[in-house]
Amino acid sequence: MKQAGIFSDDECAAVESALEQIAADTLIDGAVGDPPSDSPAEDIHTWVESELVQRVGDVGKKIHTARSRNDQVATLLVMYAIDAGSKVAQAARKLSLQLCEKATQWGPLVFPLQTHCQFAAPGSVGFWALKYAAAFERSANRLSDSIKAWKRACPLGSGAVAGSSIPIDRATQATLLGFDGPTDNALDSTSTRDACLELLADAAHTALHLQSFATDVIAFAQTSLAWVAYPAGFGTGSSMMPNKTNPDAMELLRGECNAIVAAHNHALLIMKGLPSGYNRDLQCIKPVIQSSAEMLTELLDMTTHFAEALAFRPENLKASLQMGHIDATLRMEEKVQDGMAMRDAHHAVAGDLDSAEPGRDIAALAKHYQTIGSASPEETVRIAGVMIQRLRATDRG
Amino acid sequence: MKQAGIFSDDECAAVESALEQIAADTLIDGAVGDPPSDSPAEDIHTWVESELVQRVGDVGKKIHTARSRNDQVATLLVMYAIDAGSKVAQAARKLSLQLCEKATQWGPLVFPLQTHCQFAAPGSVGFWALKYAAAFERSANRLSDSIKAWKRACPLGSGAVAGSSIPIDRATQATLLGFDGPTDNALDSTSTRDACLELLADAAHTALHLQSFATDVIAFAQTSLAWVAYPAGFGTGSSMMPNKTNPDAMELLRGECNAIVAAHNHALLIMKGLPSGYNRDLQCIKPVIQSSAEMLTELLDMTTHFAEALAFRPENLKASLQMGHIDATLRMEEKVQDGMAMRDAHHAVAGDLDSAEPGRDIAALAKHYQTIGSASPEETVRIAGVMIQRLRATDRG
Amino acid sequence: MKQAGIFSDDECAAVESALEQIAADTLIDGAVGDPPSDSPAEDIHTWVESELVQRVGDVGKKIHTARSRNDQVATLLVMYAIDAGSKVAQAARKLSLQLCEKATQWGPLVFPLQTHCQFAAPGSVGFWALKYAAAFERSANRLSDSIKAWKRACPLGSGAVAGSSIPIDRATQATLLGFDGPTDNALDSTSTRDACLELLADAAHTALHLQSFATDVIAFAQTSLAWVAYPAGFGTGSSMMPNKTNPDAMELLRGECNAIVAAHNHALLIMKGLPSGYNRDLQCIKPVIQSSAEMLTELLDMTTHFAEALAFRPENLKASLQMGHIDATLRMEEKVQDGMAMRDAHHAVAGDLDSAEPGRDIAALAKHYQTIGSASPEETVRIAGVMIQRLRATDRG
Amino acid sequence: MKQAGIFSDDECAAVESALEQIAADTLIDGAVGDPPSDSPAEDIHTWVESELVQRVGDVGKKIHTARSRNDQVATLLVMYAIDAGSKVAQAARKLSLQLCEKATQWGPLVFPLQTHCQFAAPGSVGFWALKYAAAFERSANRLSDSIKAWKRACPLGSGAVAGSSIPIDRATQATLLGFDGPTDNALDSTSTRDACLELLADAAHTALHLQSFATDVIAFAQTSLAWVAYPAGFGTGSSMMPNKTNPDAMELLRGECNAIVAAHNHALLIMKGLPSGYNRDLQCIKPVIQSSAEMLTELLDMTTHFAEALAFRPENLKASLQMGHIDATLRMEEKVQDGMAMRDAHHAVAGDLDSAEPGRDIAALAKHYQTIGSASPEETVRIAGVMIQRLRATDRG
Repeated sequence: MKQAGIFSDDECAAVESALEQIAADTLIDGAVGDPPSDSPAEDIHTWVESELVQRVGDVGKKIHTARSRNDQVATLLVMYAIDAGSKVAQAARKLSLQLCEKATQWGPLVFPLQTHCQFAAPGSVGFWALKYAAAFERSANRLSDSIKAWKRACPLGSGAVAGSSIPIDRATQATLLGFDGPTDNALDSTSTRDACLELLADAAHTALHLQSFATDVIAFAQTSLAWVAYPAGFGTGSSMMPNKTNPDAMELLRGECNAIVAAHNHALLIMKGLPSGYNRDLQCIKPVIQSSAEMLTELLDMTTHFAEALAFRPENLKASLQMGHIDATLRMEEKVQDGMAMRDAHHAVAGDLDSAEPGRDIAALAKHYQTIGSASPEETVRIAGVMIQRLRATDRG
Repeated sequence: MKQAGIFSDDECAAVESALEQIAADTLIDGAVGDPPSDSPAEDIHTWVESELVQRVGDVGKKIHTARSRNDQVATLLVMYAIDAGSKVAQAARKLSLQLCEKATQWGPLVFPLQTHCQFAAPGSVGFWALKYAAAFERSANRLSDSIKAWKRACPLGSGAVAGSSIPIDRATQATLLGFDGPTDNALDSTSTRDACLELLADAAHTALHLQSFATDVIAFAQTSLAWVAYPAGFGTGSSMMPNKTNPDAMELLRGECNAIVAAHNHALLIMKGLPSGYNRDLQCIKPVIQSSAEMLTELLDMTTHFAEALAFRPENLKASLQMGHIDATLRMEEKVQDGMAMRDAHHAVAGDLDSAEPGRDIAALAKHYQTIGSASPEETVRIAGVMIQRLRATDRG
Repeated sequence: MKQAGIFSDDECAAVESALEQIAADTLIDGAVGDPPSDSPAEDIHTWVESELVQRVGDVGKKIHTARSRNDQVATLLVMYAIDAGSKVAQAARKLSLQLCEKATQWGPLVFPLQTHCQFAAPGSVGFWALKYAAAFERSANRLSDSIKAWKRACPLGSGAVAGSSIPIDRATQATLLGFDGPTDNALDSTSTRDACLELLADAAHTALHLQSFATDVIAFAQTSLAWVAYPAGFGTGSSMMPNKTNPDAMELLRGECNAIVAAHNHALLIMKGLPSGYNRDLQCIKPVIQSSAEMLTELLDMTTHFAEALAFRPENLKASLQMGHIDATLRMEEKVQDGMAMRDAHHAVAGDLDSAEPGRDIAALAKHYQTIGSASPEETVRIAGVMIQRLRATDRG
Repeated sequence: MKQAGIFSDDECAAVESALEQIAADTLIDGAVGDPPSDSPAEDIHTWVESELVQRVGDVGKKIHTARSRNDQVATLLVMYAIDAGSKVAQAARKLSLQLCEKATQWGPLVFPLQTHCQFAAPGSVGFWALKYAAAFERSANRLSDSIKAWKRACPLGSGAVAGSSIPIDRATQATLLGFDGPTDNALDSTSTRDACLELLADAAHTALHLQSFATDVIAFAQTSLAWVAYPAGFGTGSSMMPNKTNPDAMELLRGECNAIVAAHNHALLIMKGLPSGYNRDLQCIKPVIQSSAEMLTELLDMTTHFAEALAFRPENLKASLQMGHIDATLRMEEKVQDGMAMRDAHHAVAGDLDSAEPGRDIAALAKHYQTIGSASPEETVRIAGVMIQRLRATDRG
């Protein structure tokens, strides 16, 4: 504003000081986004201006020069997405790190990995934990990529729809607010909500991973397996059935994530078919991204605490290893290594599932996996180490 | 396979040659993904193996060594997403380029920009076209960012769920297939469909821009405005009303995009709550991404042709400029430039809307915008030029 | 309970009186569904029981006999759906009635009806209002049908999952709570949320009609038509553009309805793939139906007030009638009535659109429509009368 | 048409006979809805008219009198919804009946019912089957209620948007087509797609029940329970793991149902924010309802065959009954029947879970349930009988 010649140096100093004072007086406890309830102002922007005029006089009436609520809101939403997205990414990395640490600890524990909800092959419990560590790290990286893109262009200075005839310096404004530069088109800038939609899509995908994690834990806790010692404080009893302890936290995690998954579709509906130029419908996106981002951060944090508290029951894992002939693939690959063609070895083992040496140590077989990212205890511990270093470096970076 | 010691040099050559022959013989007309209808094979993978055995003998039975359909499908889906995403991005850039060229041509045409479906301020028609050029360029860039992320890690070699005890070289495989390296976790690799979900989210956001474009054109074509000469070949008549020509192509564009917008939610439903490890439900995502990506590419191409054919009616634009006092903001900013505080100038103009000099050339006022990305004809032509260069550079790059 | 022999007459009286007292003491200001914040109780059910024991002693410990929170919640949700659905239906009928009254008043006003956003044919403004009156009456009837179905079967007495070995009389309970009888299966009763889903689907369809109404009014208010005198109190000004008054209430109506439209999908996500038997995820549906039903009732009420305040500008309607050759269909049908085949008449009029007698009174043509439910002023007033009687009868019924 | 005086008796006979001939000649193999591929006609309506003119001469040009494609399509869609809805309802009742028959057979088999995926209480396997029998009967009844509502009012004769000046008898037309009468408003009739939306919502809710059924069966088939003998022909093997047989049909059922569940949201997106009057976007709903209804009918039929083939393994059910102290609730209720307050009995049993008489016959306890719709074998068989009679009566009715 000073640069654009609207304010003198003195006026600028007076306005800045008054704005800081207004923030100090009111916004600490006030809900951001709403004017005080006894104010006749149409919205928070109008209220700030009237408050400013009361404190610094007529010069306050200049504050909205070359501004519209349209470009202000568009800018604040992108800035909100950047901030909220960073918090989600941080929470996702923290959960990933927690799971890597558990993976290191659980590396030697072997249990039946499943496909199609059938016991499939022996593998490290830590390998299972790394599945989610990898997923949440990828979620965090996706958000970091998104944030980088959102920072490319700042909408401020786009005015109501067409820009302004006041020669304000949009490039400097953009830099001051942490963007690479200004946007290319004022109409696009005031109409688009792409950053909001992308934040919601990234959040939805992250929430899906939380839901699968919950489904896995609920399955691991079921009566017939009892693989996990469900951590106290994350479950409740039954009002009618004295014998029950229920995995409530995981069911609620799965249940509440649906609000995040559904929020993206909600925002798509809001945007569908809107003409260009600001339309008031756009206002309805704000609570959607706010509640989704906050809820997701909380659920990631809760899951980090849950993962820390989670423990497995080695004796129950061991008992399950005897079911389902889960050494079959490794037996087949032994024959392949001995020179038999893979399909012949598959038929040979399939036709003779019950001939396996009784009492064979199936857990020990898991060390035979040789490929990068496999389910062997050794590879699990190695990958966990690699990921821990990478996550810590990102955290510092 | 040769590197892993499964095939000798001769065997490898024989198998490669037979596979090329099978492709040449059958897949040209065959639907990829289904075995010939008279085959008893469970799926295309099994059919290829049996065909191979028929042609090269028992060595064909080795082809599935250290492989599962689970990691093969996961790999092919990511490769499909990379390929289909590139095609969508290319089509989006082509449309963006077309709109930039029209923006150059439409630069001098001025019409009423709208907010809240109300005439708001004068601006260049080319500026309106750049709104969508900017949106589709951003969509393309988002997809390029996504593709870069999908190329980071290749799932192949993850086996059914746990990796393999055959020491195949996943890093080399990944490089040969164009990835930066192998994935970190076999369970994550075979369970996740993040690339599919991200492709669908990016596609949905792109489709929303197409829908807004359609809504704008339909509004510009309405009887009371008739700003556009709706291009022949993109509309139809009425079976009952002899007076009607309808903007069918734009209505169908808006209508059909809903399939793309809805596809993301469809995929989220598929993924919701699945346990880790391959589940057959995952198969249902394939047709969703395929039809969405193909339809979006087609609709972007159709819109490119439509934009090329679109013309405006200068006399109708001019007539509309006289409505809605759309010079008010520029008159207010004149007063600000003359030293009046913005809020006072706002009140002054609002209280005196009808005093504007009659017959004032409102189109000429649009040249007064001074900000980057504004609606002035000059800035429109300048930005169009910048974008054209950037889009062509990306296309070459 | 008394009937089942659990309580003696005196115990029953004491418990009933204490429960009434608890309600009187606390629930007036307390949020229903949550125990007081300083209570250690797991939920409201547990809290009520502990409060009861404090007031009536050990007999209070019998209150949960043959009960589970599972069947209680299932029952309360159906009862909530019945109550909330009735309120929505009532609000929809009230809006329908308001629109019928306006239709009577607007009967003689004629304006261009549109298809494909193109002027199509002359018709009564009241006929347009009746479009929405018919839609909201149908929405209300759909809800009434749904409510009738929900009342068929009461879940109470289904216990946690399997019923109870205490021989409680479910049929009597069902009747006392206003249901036709008890449900047939305790597992279905505690797992299903069909009434919630149906309420949300019915609400979504109703919200779509509100959105189309909003879109119509926004279009009727646009600068080039200005058919409506947008009612004061339902719009706002622009912070930057002194010339603007925006149809905010209708944009917000369209925008906020998306929350209701999206809520159904949210609930579908919650239910997707849940196993039978109560799962805690089900709890997440409660806030979804509550906020949707309340918001929809409010938006219907707001729209009723808006419709009451809405006025049309006859001079602007009249000016628009001269555009778009909207007498063409009626001219064609005149030729048909004179014996020409319809397709020939269509060609004849289409080839000669400009030959219509200049200054012809196009509004007067609207009286020529002869079919039931047509756009003629007379039929509009007749149908409005029929509907008003029907709506009032339902209201009384 | 004859009644409206458009056709003479002879003309009417000639046209009717020609239309029958056209149908016989072409539509047997032609895709309904598309004109022959070598025709220049805009759509099937136009093609039929041109074909008719070729066969009966100029009188064919009268066929579209007082008709628009708008009211024709609206009518056909409602008629399609009625027909497709009936087929879905019939398939749902057939599945319900099959499940009731299995429930009768499975009545004496007792297994652990679950809540929160934890063993909860003993109950009849037939009682589990009745859960879904009840759900699908309710789905069918919902559809029957919907169909009754759709038949209330016929859109035909609403013309393009305003009705017609040709005095056609809409009431008679409606009756001839099987409706109760004509719709009240031509604009509503040509704009609304409520029947389509309701069909899709009803279908989505039915699909959710299929998904839960699939989830249950997949859980019952898991390695550690192996309660079901997964029927041959509904599963496949693993390409890499010789030990696996996977419950593919149930996973695909759960997976494919998502297309039906997602279709409702797709249609909501299409409808969102459309202005009144026919818009071409509406055309995009047709394939959505068609593929959803057809797919749902097929999946219901497939599930009926699957249910018929499904068998349980009594020895595995019996082994599971010993886990999870699932007699606890019944033991608590014994104490209640002996006079102890419910909460005290709950504490007593919960504190002493392991004291149950060893070797107690837990399956036999299931006969102690006394409430309507409980999990006892006797009540299961009784309810199955009641439902079979009711379903057969509906089928006849």
